[in-house]
Amino acid sequence: MASQQKDPRDALDHLDALIQEMRVAMMTTVEEDGSLRARPMWTRGRDADGSLWLFTREHASKVGEVSHDHHVNLSYADAARERFVSLSGRCQLVLDRDRARALWSPALQAWFPQGLDDPELALLRVSVEKAEYWDASTRRRVHWARRVRAALNGHGSDEAGDNARLTFDDRGAPIS
Amino acid sequence: MASQQKDPRDALDHLDALIQEMRVAMMTTVEEDGSLRARPMWTRGRDADGSLWLFTREHASKVGEVSHDHHVNLSYADAARERFVSLSGRCQLVLDRDRARALWSPALQAWFPQGLDDPELALLRVSVEKAEYWDASTRRRVHWARRVRAALNGHGSDEAGDNARLTFDDRGAPIS
Repeated sequence: MASQQKDPRDALDHLDALIQEMRVAMMTTVEEDGSLRARPMWTRGRDADGSLWLFTREHASKVGEVSHDHHVNLSYADAARERFVSLSGRCQLVLDRDRARALWSPALQAWFPQGLDDPELALLRVSVEKAEYWDASTRRRVHWARRVRAALNGHGSDEAGDNARLTFDDRGAPIS
Repeated sequence: MASQQKDPRDALDHLDALIQEMRVAMMTTVEEDGSLRARPMWTRGRDADGSLWLFTREHASKVGEVSHDHHVNLSYADAARERFVSLSGRCQLVLDRDRARALWSPALQAWFPQGLDDPELALLRVSVEKAEYWDASTRRRVHWARRVRAALNGHGSDEAGDNARLTFDDRGAPIS
Protein backbone atom coordinates (compact mmCIF):
# COMPACT_ATOMS: atom_id res chain seq x y z
CA MET A 1 0.00 0.00 0.00
CA ALA A 2 2.26 2.76 -1.32
CA SER A 3 1.63 6.25 -0.02
CA GLN A 4 3.11 9.12 -1.96
CA GLN A 5 2.82 12.82 -2.74
CA LYS A 6 1.44 13.86 -6.11
CA ASP A 7 0.22 17.13 -7.57
CA PRO A 8 -2.77 18.10 -5.44
CA ARG A 9 -4.32 19.97 -8.38
CA ASP A 10 -4.79 16.73 -10.30
CA ALA A 11 -6.51 15.20 -7.31
CA LEU A 12 -8.76 18.20 -6.77
CA ASP A 13 -9.70 18.33 -10.45
CA HIS A 14 -10.46 14.65 -10.38
CA LEU A 15 -12.58 14.99 -7.24
CA ASP A 16 -14.46 17.82 -8.88
CA ALA A 17 -15.08 15.74 -12.00
CA LEU A 18 -16.34 12.81 -9.92
CA ILE A 19 -18.86 15.02 -8.11
CA GLN A 20 -20.01 16.66 -11.35
CA GLU A 21 -20.51 13.26 -12.91
CA MET A 22 -22.29 11.58 -10.01
CA ARG A 23 -24.45 14.58 -9.04
CA VAL A 24 -26.62 12.80 -6.47
CA ALA A 25 -25.17 12.64 -2.97
CA MET A 26 -26.41 10.65 -0.02
CA MET A 27 -26.40 13.26 2.75
CA THR A 28 -26.00 11.79 6.23
CA THR A 29 -27.01 13.74 9.33
CA VAL A 30 -27.13 12.98 13.04
CA GLU A 31 -30.64 12.66 14.50
CA GLU A 32 -31.51 13.74 18.01
CA ASP A 33 -31.25 10.19 19.35
CA GLY A 34 -27.74 9.92 17.89
CA SER A 35 -28.71 7.71 14.96
CA LEU A 36 -27.39 8.51 11.48
CA ARG A 37 -29.78 9.04 8.61
CA ALA A 38 -29.09 9.50 4.90
CA ARG A 39 -31.18 10.69 1.97
CA PRO A 40 -30.44 11.43 -1.70
CA MET A 41 -29.85 15.07 -2.63
CA TRP A 42 -28.97 16.80 -5.90
CA THR A 43 -25.74 18.76 -5.83
CA ARG A 44 -26.61 22.01 -7.53
CA GLY A 45 -23.46 24.05 -7.51
CA ARG A 46 -20.26 25.10 -5.90
CA ASP A 47 -19.14 28.36 -4.37
CA ALA A 48 -15.95 30.32 -4.92
CA ASP A 49 -14.89 29.02 -1.50
CA GLY A 50 -15.64 25.40 -2.42
CA SER A 51 -18.92 25.07 -0.53
CA LEU A 52 -21.53 22.84 -2.11
CA TRP A 53 -25.17 23.91 -2.51
CA LEU A 54 -28.19 21.65 -2.29
CA PHE A 55 -31.92 22.35 -2.58
CA THR A 56 -34.25 21.41 0.27
CA ARG A 57 -37.63 22.12 1.83
CA GLU A 58 -37.30 24.40 4.80
CA HIS A 59 -39.43 22.14 6.99
CA ALA A 60 -38.02 18.83 5.83
CA SER A 61 -36.85 16.67 8.72
CA LYS A 62 -33.21 16.92 7.73
CA VAL A 63 -33.33 20.65 8.38
CA GLY A 64 -34.32 19.82 11.94
CA GLU A 65 -31.42 17.42 12.08
CA VAL A 66 -28.84 19.89 10.85
CA SER A 67 -30.04 22.59 13.21
CA HIS A 68 -29.37 20.08 16.01
CA ASP A 69 -25.92 19.11 14.72
CA HIS A 70 -24.29 20.90 11.85
CA HIS A 71 -22.02 18.00 10.90
CA VAL A 72 -22.98 16.24 7.69
CA ASN A 73 -21.43 13.78 5.28
CA LEU A 74 -22.03 13.82 1.53
CA SER A 75 -21.18 10.55 -0.16
CA TYR A 76 -21.23 9.80 -3.88
CA ALA A 77 -21.11 6.23 -5.17
CA ASP A 78 -20.86 4.59 -8.57
CA ALA A 79 -20.40 0.96 -7.59
CA ALA A 80 -20.32 -0.32 -11.18
CA ARG A 81 -17.22 1.78 -11.90
CA GLU A 82 -15.92 1.54 -8.35
CA ARG A 83 -15.87 5.28 -7.75
CA PHE A 84 -16.68 6.65 -4.32
CA VAL A 85 -16.42 10.05 -2.67
CA SER A 86 -16.80 11.06 0.99
CA LEU A 87 -17.07 14.74 1.92
CA SER A 88 -17.18 15.69 5.60
CA GLY A 89 -18.44 19.15 6.35
CA ARG A 90 -20.78 21.47 8.13
CA CYS A 91 -24.22 22.36 6.95
CA GLN A 92 -26.15 25.59 7.13
CA LEU A 93 -29.69 26.47 6.07
CA VAL A 94 -29.73 29.47 3.74
CA LEU A 95 -32.86 31.39 2.73
CA ASP A 96 -31.72 33.39 -0.28
CA ARG A 97 -34.03 33.73 -3.30
CA ASP A 98 -31.36 35.25 -5.52
CA ARG A 99 -28.97 32.42 -4.84
CA ALA A 100 -31.77 29.89 -5.41
CA ARG A 101 -32.56 31.53 -8.76
CA ALA A 102 -28.93 31.30 -9.80
CA LEU A 103 -28.74 27.60 -8.89
CA TRP A 104 -32.18 26.62 -10.18
CA SER A 105 -32.58 23.88 -12.79
CA PRO A 106 -35.79 22.84 -14.61
CA ALA A 107 -35.14 19.28 -13.38
CA LEU A 108 -36.00 20.48 -9.88
CA GLN A 109 -39.56 21.31 -10.96
CA ALA A 110 -40.59 17.70 -10.28
CA TRP A 111 -39.91 18.19 -6.56
CA PHE A 112 -40.83 21.84 -6.28
CA PRO A 113 -43.90 22.14 -8.53
CA GLN A 114 -44.25 25.82 -7.62
CA GLY A 115 -40.66 26.38 -8.67
CA LEU A 116 -38.88 29.35 -7.19
CA ASP A 117 -42.17 30.55 -5.72
CA ASP A 118 -42.44 27.47 -3.49
CA PRO A 119 -42.69 28.96 0.02
CA GLU A 120 -40.73 26.01 1.48
CA LEU A 121 -37.85 26.31 -0.97
CA ALA A 122 -34.55 26.66 0.84
CA LEU A 123 -30.89 25.97 0.29
CA LEU A 124 -28.37 23.99 2.26
CA ARG A 125 -24.78 25.07 2.06
CA VAL A 126 -22.18 22.45 2.97
CA SER A 127 -18.70 23.73 3.83
CA VAL A 128 -16.40 20.83 3.05
CA GLU A 129 -13.70 20.19 5.66
CA LYS A 130 -12.45 16.75 4.68
CA ALA A 131 -12.60 14.88 1.39
CA GLU A 132 -11.69 11.37 0.33
CA TYR A 133 -12.17 9.45 -2.85
CA TRP A 134 -11.62 5.97 -4.13
CA ASP A 135 -11.37 5.38 -7.86
CA ALA A 136 -10.63 1.96 -9.30
CA SER A 137 -9.86 3.42 -12.74
CA THR A 138 -6.91 5.37 -11.37
CA ARG A 139 -6.23 2.83 -8.59
CA ARG A 140 -6.06 5.76 -6.25
CA ARG A 141 -7.43 6.54 -2.90
CA VAL A 142 -6.98 10.16 -1.94
CA HIS A 143 -7.46 11.65 1.46
CA TRP A 144 -7.45 15.18 2.72
CA ALA A 145 -7.21 15.59 6.46
CA ARG A 146 -7.32 19.35 6.19
CA ARG A 147 -9.83 22.05 5.41
CA VAL A 148 -10.42 21.89 1.69
CA ARG A 149 -12.81 24.81 1.48
CA ALA A 150 -10.52 27.08 -0.46
CA ALA A 151 -8.61 24.24 -2.02
CA LEU A 152 -11.66 22.77 -3.75
CA ASN A 153 -12.02 25.80 -5.93
CA GLY A 154 -9.06 28.06 -5.31
CA HIS A 155 -6.49 26.16 -7.29
CA GLY A 156 -4.27 29.18 -7.55
CA SER A 157 -4.23 29.98 -3.85
CA ASP A 158 -1.44 29.29 -1.40
CA GLU A 159 -3.72 26.99 0.53
CA ALA A 160 -4.30 24.75 -2.43
CA GLY A 161 -0.58 24.49 -2.94
CA ASP A 162 -0.11 23.06 0.54
CA ASN A 163 -0.19 19.33 0.08
CA ALA A 164 1.46 18.46 3.38
CA ARG A 165 -1.55 16.53 4.54
CA LEU A 166 -2.75 15.33 1.16
CA THR A 167 -1.88 11.65 0.83
CA PHE A 168 -2.38 9.18 -1.98
CA ASP A 169 -2.87 5.49 -1.60
CA ASP A 170 -2.52 3.50 -4.79
CA ARG A 171 -4.72 0.70 -3.54
CA GLY A 172 -8.21 1.67 -4.67
CA ALA A 173 -9.74 -0.67 -2.14
CA PRO A 174 -13.40 -0.31 -1.30
CA ILE A 175 -12.84 -1.83 2.06
CA SER A 176 -10.60 0.25 4.30
CA MET B 1 -47.64 13.24 -2.11
CA ALA B 2 -49.91 10.30 -1.26
CA SER B 3 -49.02 8.32 1.82
CA GLN B 4 -50.59 4.91 2.20
CA GLN B 5 -50.24 1.49 3.79
CA LYS B 6 -49.17 -1.42 1.61
CA ASP B 7 -48.02 -4.95 2.28
CA PRO B 8 -44.79 -4.60 4.30
CA ARG B 9 -43.51 -7.90 2.92
CA ASP B 10 -43.31 -6.46 -0.58
CA ALA B 11 -41.35 -3.50 0.72
CA LEU B 12 -38.97 -5.67 2.74
CA ASP B 13 -38.37 -8.00 -0.21
CA HIS B 14 -37.72 -5.02 -2.42
CA LEU B 15 -35.31 -3.48 0.08
CA ASP B 16 -33.50 -6.80 0.30
CA ALA B 17 -33.25 -7.00 -3.50
CA LEU B 18 -31.88 -3.45 -3.71
CA ILE B 19 -29.13 -4.23 -1.19
CA GLN B 20 -28.25 -7.53 -2.90
CA GLU B 21 -28.01 -5.73 -6.22
CA MET B 22 -26.01 -2.72 -5.08
CA ARG B 23 -23.67 -4.60 -2.74
CA VAL B 24 -21.33 -1.72 -1.95
CA ALA B 25 -22.44 0.54 0.90
CA MET B 26 -20.99 3.85 1.95
CA MET B 27 -20.66 3.40 5.70
CA THR B 28 -20.77 6.67 7.64
CA THR B 29 -19.40 6.91 11.18
CA VAL B 30 -18.94 9.72 13.67
CA GLU B 31 -15.33 10.74 14.32
CA GLU B 32 -14.08 11.92 17.68
CA ASP B 33 -14.32 15.60 16.65
CA GLY B 34 -17.96 15.05 15.67
CA SER B 35 -17.37 15.06 11.93
CA LEU B 36 -18.98 12.38 9.75
CA ARG B 37 -16.86 10.18 7.54
CA ALA B 38 -17.90 7.61 4.92
CA ARG B 39 -16.07 4.83 3.10
CA PRO B 40 -17.12 2.09 0.69
CA MET B 41 -17.69 -1.37 2.15
CA TRP B 42 -18.81 -4.68 0.67
CA THR B 43 -21.97 -6.11 2.20
CA ARG B 44 -21.20 -9.77 2.67
CA GLY B 45 -24.27 -11.29 4.24
CA ARG B 46 -27.26 -11.06 6.46
CA ASP B 47 -28.13 -12.72 9.73
CA ALA B 48 -31.30 -14.51 10.75
CA ASP B 49 -32.05 -11.40 12.82
CA GLY B 50 -31.49 -9.08 9.86
CA SER B 51 -28.04 -7.79 10.85
CA LEU B 52 -25.67 -7.02 8.00
CA TRP B 53 -22.07 -8.26 7.95
CA LEU B 54 -19.12 -6.40 6.49
CA PHE B 55 -15.42 -7.25 6.29
CA THR B 56 -12.85 -4.88 7.76
CA ARG B 57 -9.31 -4.61 9.06
CA GLU B 58 -9.24 -4.67 12.83
CA HIS B 59 -7.00 -1.64 13.02
CA ALA B 60 -8.63 0.41 10.29
CA SER B 61 -9.59 3.88 11.47
CA LYS B 62 -13.30 3.19 11.19
CA VAL B 63 -12.96 0.58 13.91
CA GLY B 64 -11.67 3.32 16.18
CA GLU B 65 -14.62 5.44 15.13
CA VAL B 66 -17.23 2.79 15.86
CA SER B 67 -15.71 2.02 19.25
CA HIS B 68 -16.18 5.72 20.03
CA ASP B 69 -19.77 5.84 18.76
CA HIS B 70 -21.65 2.74 17.71
CA HIS B 71 -24.08 4.58 15.46
CA VAL B 72 -23.49 4.06 11.74
CA ASN B 73 -25.35 4.65 8.50
CA LEU B 74 -25.10 2.37 5.49
CA SER B 75 -26.20 4.03 2.26
CA TYR B 76 -26.55 2.40 -1.15
CA ALA B 77 -26.89 4.50 -4.29
CA ASP B 78 -27.50 3.80 -7.95
CA ALA B 79 -27.99 7.30 -9.29
CA ALA B 80 -28.46 6.20 -12.92
CA ARG B 81 -31.55 4.17 -11.94
CA GLU B 82 -32.51 6.55 -9.12
CA ARG B 83 -32.39 3.90 -6.42
CA PHE B 84 -31.23 4.81 -2.95
CA VAL B 85 -31.21 3.08 0.44
CA SER B 86 -30.44 4.42 3.91
CA LEU B 87 -29.97 2.01 6.82
CA SER B 88 -29.49 3.44 10.31
CA GLY B 89 -28.04 1.06 12.85
CA ARG B 90 -25.46 0.19 15.41
CA CYS B 91 -22.13 -1.34 14.68
CA GLN B 92 -20.09 -3.90 16.55
CA LEU B 93 -16.62 -5.35 15.86
CA VAL B 94 -16.71 -9.15 15.78
CA LEU B 95 -13.62 -11.38 15.80
CA ASP B 96 -14.99 -14.76 14.69
CA ARG B 97 -12.98 -16.90 12.25
CA ASP B 98 -15.80 -19.37 11.64
CA ARG B 99 -18.21 -16.62 10.73
CA ALA B 100 -15.57 -14.99 8.51
CA ARG B 101 -15.04 -18.33 6.73
CA ALA B 102 -18.78 -18.66 6.12
CA LEU B 103 -19.02 -15.13 4.67
CA TRP B 104 -15.73 -15.21 2.70
CA SER B 105 -15.71 -14.57 -1.05
CA PRO B 106 -12.71 -14.92 -3.42
CA ALA B 107 -13.38 -11.30 -4.49
CA LEU B 108 -12.13 -10.20 -1.06
CA GLN B 109 -8.68 -11.63 -1.81
CA ALA B 110 -7.71 -8.35 -3.50
CA TRP B 111 -7.99 -6.52 -0.18
CA PHE B 112 -6.93 -9.31 2.13
CA PRO B 113 -4.10 -10.98 0.20
CA GLN B 114 -3.51 -13.41 3.06
CA GLY B 115 -7.17 -14.39 2.92
CA LEU B 116 -8.70 -15.83 6.04
CA ASP B 117 -5.21 -16.03 7.59
CA ASP B 118 -4.86 -12.24 7.53
CA PRO B 119 -4.19 -11.34 11.17
CA GLU B 120 -6.12 -8.08 10.80
CA LEU B 121 -9.22 -9.67 9.31
CA ALA B 122 -12.31 -8.77 11.30
CA LEU B 123 -16.03 -8.44 10.84
CA LEU B 124 -18.41 -5.58 11.48
CA ARG B 125 -21.97 -6.46 12.33
CA VAL B 126 -24.55 -3.72 11.76
CA SER B 127 -27.88 -4.11 13.54
CA VAL B 128 -30.34 -2.17 11.41
CA GLU B 129 -32.79 -0.03 13.37
CA LYS B 130 -34.25 2.19 10.66
CA ALA B 131 -34.47 1.72 6.90
CA GLU B 132 -35.58 3.95 4.05
CA TYR B 133 -35.47 3.57 0.32
CA TRP B 134 -36.26 5.64 -2.72
CA ASP B 135 -36.87 3.89 -6.02
CA ALA B 136 -37.86 5.81 -9.14
CA SER B 137 -38.91 2.61 -10.95
CA THR B 138 -41.66 1.96 -8.41
CA ARG B 139 -42.12 5.69 -7.66
CA ARG B 140 -41.98 4.74 -4.04
CA ARG B 141 -40.30 6.07 -1.01
CA VAL B 142 -40.52 3.73 1.96
CA HIS B 143 -39.65 4.57 5.50
CA TRP B 144 -39.41 2.49 8.63
CA ALA B 145 -39.33 4.43 11.83
CA ARG B 146 -39.13 1.28 13.89
CA ARG B 147 -36.65 -1.46 14.65
CA VAL B 148 -36.38 -3.58 11.54
CA ARG B 149 -33.94 -6.11 12.89
CA ALA B 150 -36.34 -9.02 12.92
CA ALA B 151 -38.48 -7.61 10.16
CA LEU B 152 -35.66 -7.55 7.64
CA ASN B 153 -35.44 -11.31 7.64
CA GLY B 154 -38.25 -12.65 9.78
CA HIS B 155 -41.04 -12.19 7.28
CA GLY B 156 -43.22 -14.67 9.12
CA SER B 157 -42.86 -13.09 12.53
CA ASP B 158 -45.42 -11.00 14.34
CA GLU B 159 -43.02 -8.09 14.30
CA ALA B 160 -42.80 -8.07 10.52
CA GLY B 161 -46.56 -8.05 10.32
CA ASP B 162 -46.75 -4.80 12.25
CA ASN B 163 -46.81 -2.08 9.65
CA ALA B 164 -48.20 0.60 11.91
CA ARG B 165 -45.12 2.73 11.42
CA LEU B 166 -44.28 1.62 7.91
CA THR B 167 -45.26 4.38 5.49
CA PHE B 168 -45.11 4.65 1.74
CA ASP B 169 -44.69 7.80 -0.21
CA ASP B 170 -45.40 7.50 -3.91
CA ARG B 171 -43.19 10.42 -4.76
CA GLY B 172 -39.79 8.87 -5.43
CA ALA B 173 -38.11 12.19 -4.93
CA PRO B 174 -34.36 12.32 -4.38
CA ILE B 175 -34.67 15.57 -2.53
CA SER B 176 -36.60 15.26 0.72
